[in-house]
Amino acid sequence: MKNIVLASTSTLHGEEYLSYLLPVMKELFGGVREVLFIPYARPGGISHDDYTERAAAAFAPLHIKVTGLHRFPSPAEALQNGEAFFTGGGNTFLLVKQLHELALMDVLRHEVENGKPYLGTSAGSNIGGCNMQTTNDMPIVYPPSFETMGLVPFNLNPHYLDPIPDLPHMGETRETRIREFHTQQQTPVVGLREGSWIRVKGSEITLEGTRSARIFEHDKAPYELSPWHPIALS
Amino acid sequence: MKNIVLASTSTLHGEEYLSYLLPVMKELFGGVREVLFIPYARPGGISHDDYTERAAAAFAPLHIKVTGLHRFPSPAEALQNGEAFFTGGGNTFLLVKQLHELALMDVLRHEVENGKPYLGTSAGSNIGGCNMQTTNDMPIVYPPSFETMGLVPFNLNPHYLDPIPDLPHMGETRETRIREFHTQQQTPVVGLREGSWIRVKGSEITLEGTRSARIFEHDKAPYELSPWHPIALS
Repeated sequence: MKNIVLASTSTLHGEEYLSYLLPVMKELFGGVREVLFIPYARPGGISHDDYTERAAAAFAPLHIKVTGLHRFPSPAEALQNGEAFFTGGGNTFLLVKQLHELALMDVLRHEVENGKPYLGTSAGSNIGGCNMQTTNDMPIVYPPSFETMGLVPFNLNPHYLDPIPDLPHMGETRETRIREFHTQQQTPVVGLREGSWIRVKGSEITLEGTRSARIFEHDKAPYELSPWHPIALS
Repeated sequence: MKNIVLASTSTLHGEEYLSYLLPVMKELFGGVREVLFIPYARPGGISHDDYTERAAAAFAPLHIKVTGLHRFPSPAEALQNGEAFFTGGGNTFLLVKQLHELALMDVLRHEVENGKPYLGTSAGSNIGGCNMQTTNDMPIVYPPSFETMGLVPFNLNPHYLDPIPDLPHMGETRETRIREFHTQQQTPVVGLREGSWIRVKGSEITLEGTRSARIFEHDKAPYELSPWHPIALS
């Protein structure tokens, strides 16, 4: 049975890393002693070790040990032997490139589809979607493919941002960008605002958290979905 | 002698398409009767024909005819026979994919390096840089390469946006994204605010327009460059 949380952000404004997610993590990782941390997205270029330490500190209140996947000579084997996973945010191009080049994308998908708990935040949530083509990140590296795990039958746009009123800036809004995506593909997109996350339990997919999500379906007007409602997209 | 304008945006807030650039276009395209328009970036998914009409209307006051490159059976030959070029904004991934797949990137570079006037706005300016890896756009398609024309020895970040004060949003700022780029590559980046453009005349490269640019060099603190100053980066 799938057991997954895909969160828009790791951190809310003015709060500590992962603190708003602790109750959700406690439930998701119930009974887990050790979480494998996937640090490849490297926000701000932080080292794999430093990023893993940051995650370990955030998991300490749950008495769960955190080990960085980069520490294993065979990360594929480590995923197969692991109990549960957390992929942190950062740059999605970097994360996806690394997962493909180390041939880990399919291994991780297989383990998570077979029921091992998975937490993603931001870039780590993007890879739960069908592909990474609705990321906000800069293409700082060239991945061999944009395909991701497809744990849910749609794409995510984490850190979804509404147009800012009275801003005289002419760059595309997030909504415009997602609509441009739909000129190329029909995959639905969930614009996930900070403070909300997607909860997957078996075949049930629910929007949770404090804020509504903006849903983009091909050839339909975008609409709002309130939290604590099922996400019925395919 | 190179004769190039790379503008941050086609349109200023509340103004008509290209209107603020008309004086610059008049000089850049002096003596030109026909401009070839490269419509592949397709903002909002607009058709090649409609996008070309929009460009043609904007060029009308200069009495310059605009023809869409998509209209030619051999666009490579059309570039070789063309007098001058304009690449409009939209999605940089789409533009770069098309230019590579039609084997036009090198042809266009060759013609522009040999002195044919070139105007780019937004995505059309991105392709004047060394690569497209500091674009703001969504990866809605997968290009065969991120390489671009390298008409200038740096990258551009069009529509450069300063952090918005008091915004409780936790997504990366533009500056954070460009610094992440520099964890992977040393290519300098010019953060080009709306209202400014880069003017290339032979080997002289100047920042022009109404606003300063933010310059990002590898391993240096970012700094401001005032308009009407040379850009000395390599």
